[in-house]
Amino acid sequence: MNWTSYTEDLARRARAASRILATADTARKNRWLLHAAHALGNRNQEILDSNSQDLAAATNLSQANIDRLRLTPDRIAAAAQGLREIAALPDPVDRTLDSRVRPNGLKIQKISVPLGVIFFIYESRPNVTIDAAGLCVKSGNAIILRGGKESLASNAALHAILQDSLKAVDLPRDAVQLVNTPEREVVGHLLRLNQFIDLTIPRGGESLIRRVAAEATMPVLKHYMGNCHVYVDRAADLVMAERILVNAKCQRPGVCNAAESLLVHTDIAAAFLPKAAAALLAQGVELRGCPATCKLAPQAKAATDADFAAEFLDLILSVKVVKNLDDAIEHITRFGSQHTETIVTNDAEAARRFTAEVDAAAVMVNASTRFNDGYEFGLGAEIGISTDKFHARGPCGLQELCSYKYVVHGSGQVRE
Amino acid sequence: MNWTSYTEDLARRARAASRILATADTARKNRWLLHAAHALGNRNQEILDSNSQDLAAATNLSQANIDRLRLTPDRIAAAAQGLREIAALPDPVDRTLDSRVRPNGLKIQKISVPLGVIFFIYESRPNVTIDAAGLCVKSGNAIILRGGKESLASNAALHAILQDSLKAVDLPRDAVQLVNTPEREVVGHLLRLNQFIDLTIPRGGESLIRRVAAEATMPVLKHYMGNCHVYVDRAADLVMAERILVNAKCQRPGVCNAAESLLVHTDIAAAFLPKAAAALLAQGVELRGCPATCKLAPQAKAATDADFAAEFLDLILSVKVVKNLDDAIEHITRFGSQHTETIVTNDAEAARRFTAEVDAAAVMVNASTRFNDGYEFGLGAEIGISTDKFHARGPCGLQELCSYKYVVHGSGQVRE
Repeated sequence: MNWTSYTEDLARRARAASRILATADTARKNRWLLHAAHALGNRNQEILDSNSQDLAAATNLSQANIDRLRLTPDRIAAAAQGLREIAALPDPVDRTLDSRVRPNGLKIQKISVPLGVIFFIYESRPNVTIDAAGLCVKSGNAIILRGGKESLASNAALHAILQDSLKAVDLPRDAVQLVNTPEREVVGHLLRLNQFIDLTIPRGGESLIRRVAAEATMPVLKHYMGNCHVYVDRAADLVMAERILVNAKCQRPGVCNAAESLLVHTDIAAAFLPKAAAALLAQGVELRGCPATCKLAPQAKAATDADFAAEFLDLILSVKVVKNLDDAIEHITRFGSQHTETIVTNDAEAARRFTAEVDAAAVMVNASTRFNDGYEFGLGAEIGISTDKFHARGPCGLQELCSYKYVVHGSGQVRE
Repeated sequence: MNWTSYTEDLARRARAASRILATADTARKNRWLLHAAHALGNRNQEILDSNSQDLAAATNLSQANIDRLRLTPDRIAAAAQGLREIAALPDPVDRTLDSRVRPNGLKIQKISVPLGVIFFIYESRPNVTIDAAGLCVKSGNAIILRGGKESLASNAALHAILQDSLKAVDLPRDAVQLVNTPEREVVGHLLRLNQFIDLTIPRGGESLIRRVAAEATMPVLKHYMGNCHVYVDRAADLVMAERILVNAKCQRPGVCNAAESLLVHTDIAAAFLPKAAAALLAQGVELRGCPATCKLAPQAKAATDADFAAEFLDLILSVKVVKNLDDAIEHITRFGSQHTETIVTNDAEAARRFTAEVDAAAVMVNASTRFNDGYEFGLGAEIGISTDKFHARGPCGLQELCSYKYVVHGSGQVRE
């Protein structure tokens, strides 16, 4: 197979579709979302059959990954409901972001427009295929989907339904394309096509994301990892701190906004750490602490710098006793991943300094790190969370999939 | 010289300075701008002496480039005035871009923050040193300046003044650093340091910008070139069209928002082209046209596709007669650089379609392409114009040098 021509054809068709999508009206895009939601319900059996093929072939996967790969009528219904919710969100395209009239009479408007073509690389969770296509088409972008190789049959079935619905509402089928081969080389080829692809969004493990970011010739929206901290300040409500800590660590330990590290102000360490350690141990959490931590919580193992830098994605927590707020901020600056950082405190000045000085996509006061999420922030569905500072930071939904253009209306003005 | 350690030291110091700048208050940043403006006036002689060294060494430069390199008391005063104007602009940092309270009581704020460290590569125009430093520090960013090698002595003199003023107002001197060597290798080293540098902005020739974009490991804000079109529609006011065309082409032909190509609707080509050609020829413009153009304006040479793709930056214009609006949009899509595109028309529907379907940083109706500029748009000083779609498009000033963070205030909320 000639992957150069395969990928260039894919990307070129996406570009052509994106030009039509860019000016597609809201009603048509929403008709597609609702049509596809309906079709997913109607065509349950072909989806489940394809998913069974994938599951039968997935002999090397862990139980957790098999669970991610599995589709059920309930999960398909939930994904269809997700499309209906995207239909209900405001259209992010053609909004007037700014408008001004200059002294010479020129009217300057800043108008939101789609980015264009998005290359989306993701893990073997077939429901993500539906979410991502829904978000991209609603925001006027063509999408090239590259799911995990274990989900190829499931994605092909879903993709066929999404394309049939595009045809039914008279939108270009190439608005949603699927890389229908597990060949790894294809990704490298697509990452070179910056004349057709405006943005790559990789999701998955850190090594995959680093490879994509290094190879991509177009912008990449990403987070490598979430090494999120809970800092319990001297002025914390210790009961609240324990509740936030246990939630941030244990409610869903395998996700990027789960806490991986606890920092405790030395003044309240003796009052807080033994109780907090007991609560965490009761949840099955393994503790890896600094020497002061190990004294106050003897169940903790000694932590290394690698532990303080780690994203465990598991029931493991690194713990450090810090001298003061400056020490906490310094530690987060050194080891953090600019994802989500929380302070627990009733001291307004400490909260102000923490939120101002800690550089992260989300900085929180007296709330669980787990809230850094598009739905929880009230922004609607998200295609990912960015820890970059360029273009978009934190949860990325419909608005973050847009750019803008300046539209200028004159009456013959020329420059003197 | 070990450029690895030289550049890493530079970048590391910029990162440290950026942390202090990120929370520096507006009054202090403005004090620096005013102090530096004053010092530039006071220290005219040392600037002019250094500039004389550069001019004496610039034996290989064209007259136009020597003019760009030259500083005069007037030019220094204008740059100082630029700093005063930046001081008068609103602080782009710590603005609340969005705010909402969730049903669970969480208060979600989206707050503007500086990008961090900016690596700025630019042509041999020493006054740009002052503008760029002013914009970056006002927006809370540390800047690493890499000017053209011909302006090294001038830049060193200006840099010393800017740093003395930083010290005088108790801001970190490393907020503004200068690459004080002409060594080309240094650029490559800095482009690898994405752990310290958040954004690279290259200005200059297309080949330099392409090299920087290809080598950079961090985001790059740029435009490769401006191949800007004036499309004279069937429904144009032909007198207005000629005035806009001549202005767009001739008012300052060497800049990126000058027109490089004229498209004329076939229905008005006979009425418009001979007169327009005469007006352009009177200004010394060389015309390169399609066959239909050459018939109507016999002074025109035959144009090639390379002419339609070219950014002449000179008194040369490519000209094409198009069948209709679709044909014009198609031509712009094929040959344009997504910089600035203008339609001259009194047909509101043609204007609507042109502004919606043409994909460029600025799309204009009945106005000269020359207006795509931060000052002309009322946005204040700019560090460059972006033809990218990611992060910022069009003129980039203080706001575009910022990112944002989510700041979340809770009262102990945890996720269910």
